[in-house]
Parts: sequence; C-alpha cells; structure tokens
Amino acid sequence: MSSKFKIALIQLLVSSSKAKNISHACELISKAASTGAKLVVLPECFNSPYGVKYFPEYAETIPGETTNALKNCAKQNQIFLVGGSIPERDESGKLFNTSTIYNPHGELIGIFRKMHLFDIDIPGKITFKESDALAPGNQLTTFDISDDFRVGLAICYDVRFPLLASLYSKRGCHLLLYPGAFNMTTGPAHWELLLRSRALDNQMYVAGVSPAHDENADYKAWGHTTLVDTWGTIIGKCEMNEEIVYGEIDLEHLKTVRKQLPYLSQQRHDVYTLEEKKLEK
Amino acid sequence: MSSKFKIALIQLLVSSSKAKNISHACELISKAASTGAKLVVLPECFNSPYGVKYFPEYAETIPGETTNALKNCAKQNQIFLVGGSIPERDESGKLFNTSTIYNPHGELIGIFRKMHLFDIDIPGKITFKESDALAPGNQLTTFDISDDFRVGLAICYDVRFPLLASLYSKRGCHLLLYPGAFNMTTGPAHWELLLRSRALDNQMYVAGVSPAHDENADYKAWGHTTLVDTWGTIIGKCEMNEEIVYGEIDLEHLKTVRKQLPYLSQQRHDVYTLEEKKLEK
Repeated sequence: MSSKFKIALIQLLVSSSKAKNISHACELISKAASTGAKLVVLPECFNSPYGVKYFPEYAETIPGETTNALKNCAKQNQIFLVGGSIPERDESGKLFNTSTIYNPHGELIGIFRKMHLFDIDIPGKITFKESDALAPGNQLTTFDISDDFRVGLAICYDVRFPLLASLYSKRGCHLLLYPGAFNMTTGPAHWELLLRSRALDNQMYVAGVSPAHDENADYKAWGHTTLVDTWGTIIGKCEMNEEIVYGEIDLEHLKTVRKQLPYLSQQRHDVYTLEEKKLEK
Repeated sequence: MSSKFKIALIQLLVSSSKAKNISHACELISKAASTGAKLVVLPECFNSPYGVKYFPEYAETIPGETTNALKNCAKQNQIFLVGGSIPERDESGKLFNTSTIYNPHGELIGIFRKMHLFDIDIPGKITFKESDALAPGNQLTTFDISDDFRVGLAICYDVRFPLLASLYSKRGCHLLLYPGAFNMTTGPAHWELLLRSRALDNQMYVAGVSPAHDENADYKAWGHTTLVDTWGTIIGKCEMNEEIVYGEIDLEHLKTVRKQLPYLSQQRHDVYTLEEKKLEK
C-alpha cells in the first residue's frame, strides 16, 4: 500500500438518546468515509452520557444494538472503524468501558476494555470514581491495517500511564488511539501534553478523540480532538464543538524520524526491562 | 524541614578554558547560595566544550581538578551541589559523561554516568555520535536531601527514555535532574515537551539544566534551562544567555497533586512490570 493513509477522528456531540447517538455517529462515519478516510475513530462513551449513574442504563452486551450498527457502518463504507467506547455488560453482569474494532468487511476484529479506571478527586474542580460502576480490562489490543501498519488502542485515563504506551511500542505499533473525554480541569492542563509526549516517546502517531463539549451535560468534556505525528508535532486538531478532524498517517515519515533519532533501538534493555504479564481476560 | 526548598539551576556560558570554566562555575554557585539556594545544579559538560574531539583532552579522573573545586565549593557554601557533568576518565582509561554530587559537608555522595549516549543523524541539521568517544554508565543514582526528599539524576539524552524516569519514580524520587545540552534542532522541538512530560508522568519536579548558547561554539546549545512542577507546569525558565534560574520545590504541593490524581498508585502492576536489572558498574 501507499505509505500515506487518511484517518478521521469524530468529535461527536453525545446526547441522552442512545438511538440518536448511534444514528448520528453512523452519519458522521459515512461523511468521513466519503472524503477518503480509511480509518475512522469515534470518541469515548459515544452512545451514552459519561457518568457512573448512566453506565448501567446504557450498557449493552457485545454483540448488541450499538455494535451491530457499527458493524454495518464499517462494511457499508469499507473502512476500519474504531468504535470509541461504550458501556459494556459482559455475560456475568460486570460493566466495562469498551472499545470495539471492525475491519472493512464489517467483522469485529478486536475489543479493548479500559485498563486504568478514572478515579480522581480534585476538590472544588472534579471528582469522579469510575470504579464505582466499572471493572477494568486486563489486555492490550492491537490490530493490523496492513503488514507494516499496526494500531494500538487504549481509553482516556489510560493515556496517563507511560508504561502502557511503551508496551504498545514494544508490540510494534505505528499509531496509538485514545478515545478519551478529558474535562475542563485536566483537559487544558494535560490533554495535549500527554498526547504529544506519548507520540514523541514512542515515535508513533497518536490520536486523542473526545466527545464534543456540552455545557448542559453532567460531565463537561474538553473536546480538542488531536492528532500528533512521530516528531511530537500536532498535525490536526479542533476546539470544543462537534467536528471531524482529518489527518494523514505517513509511514515513511515515521521511518525517517526513527532513523534520525534512533532512541527506540537505543533503550538499555541490559539495565531495565518492561514486561507484559500474561493474564486471563 | 520546611516543605519548601530553594534550588538554583546555573545556565553557565562554557569557554574553551577548563580553569576558567571551573572558577566561573564556582563564582556562580556562591552567588546562587548567597540568595538562599540549598541545592545548586550545573549544566552538562560545564568544564569543557561539548564535542567528541574535546572529551579526551578535557577528561580527568575523580578525584581531580574539577571535582576538588566542586567539593570545596559545596562545603564553603554549605549546599548540596550537582556538578552537571564532566568528561571523566576511569582507571582503565575509558571515558564517561559523568555527574558528581556533593553534600553540604563537601563530601562526594554519588556519581552518575550518562546511560544513553547521544548518537543521532538528522541530515543537514545535526549529526553527533557520542559513543565514538564515550562509554555508557549502567547505574541509576539517587541522593537524599532529607528523609522525605529524594533526588534522581540523569544526563541530557537520557531524558528521551521514559522507562528510566519511571524507574526513578519507582525509587521514590521527588525531583529529577537532567543536566543537558540540547541543540538548535531538537531543543525547540522537544526539550520543554520532554521535561514537562517526565514531570507530569511521574508527578515529580523536573529540572533541565543547559549550558548557555554560544554562537561560536562547535555545538550550539539550546539553553532554556527549565524547572517544571509535579502538575507539568513550568515554574522557572530562561532563554539562551547565561543566567541562574531559581525555583522552589514544595513537597506539600507534590503530595497534594499525588493525592488528587493518584495515578502513580493506580498502575496495573498485575498487567505490566518494569524492573531494574542488577548490574556491576
């Protein structure tokens, strides 16, 4: 394939109607695909308002209403589709914050369950305890767009954990996707810094895909969906309103940067070692 | 001790005279100490021009001319002193890029040898191969200013390696020092981003201490000595000329931030593990 690959990041405005969120997402996915995007990414929690109290009500199994729609959407548009995330209920009744991945045939080729749950307490600013409602995932997830283009996936608060990104680097990823809804405190302070540093440290493209800001929502997302290249430069971003951010992944650029500044291959594995443990789902 | 602690970062203008570099460093150290700084940090390669061809000529053993001067300087001023770095020749004749650490009694309490050597090749911009002249160190180095204030140390290109910073975090550091001379290509692109992200990811204070820019030097340093707090905010910096950057380390602020955003304690050690290997010097 060509070294260049167009992607689309959809900063969706999420409402309280699940059916409407799904149909609106599908409209925007088709719009993005019609411009030539071959990989389309939705934001975190795109079919439900974000909040502990909403998760049980909006949760569904996989397959279910939302994932069936995404499956069709990927197939109709012949794209790779990363379904941001949704509240998922597994067979035992546990809830997860889960992303689903589809290939251009509409096949579900992977899921990722948010690994680090968002439990923070900044008095007077933002307090949130995701672990009150959700269980964490235990698995990294990658998928291959071609033989030389591998994508890794994590969700929102996971971006704060550099070791997770390093593990994706170790797995050979070229692009790391973070559907994520930062807020009006941590967003301005850290969102861009985290995305840029994950990209620079691992010489990968990195995308953060947020829901649009909704002043009336309980949880006010920062928006600012952003795409960063392997040099740490922002190559696409928007502000807080609903918008599709387009960008080009250039695997030749990635190779050039990795050759010029070869620090990924200069790691001192004789001094330190990072390992992924093997766990059951 | 009080939770607040004044530090000084000396952006020294380095000349080709070793004796002059040492005496000038000592003048500025005394000046910084006279303002109440209790920890003073010099830049990378402060007694020698930076360049592969200079290292053998300027290298010295420890103890030697430079470290004897620093020892006296720390004692006279009753400060902790981190001697940026110097080209060091060990007993076998190997050369290292080495930082030395002194307590307020003038005792040498630790050394750090640059662990990741600076070998890069950006055609038309900057090509440098430090490993042509130097051997790498194999050891992390920390020192304690008090029972609840631990400092870690690494040099320049080491800042590009997030796992090293994570290991310092694991060792309980509150401040991470990077004497470092970035250049006019990587400096504007990456220096601030790297320092801020190491601070944010590890909720430590982080300082990058550069030599001043010298338009006539072979290697033109970016300068921009910078101090970042545990929230990722820059709390002190200068531009390219010789200057002392002062800043306050507030261990209560550090504790507050770590409590509000407790991601250091939310790492998934059940999923991944980072280990320091035990090596001989």
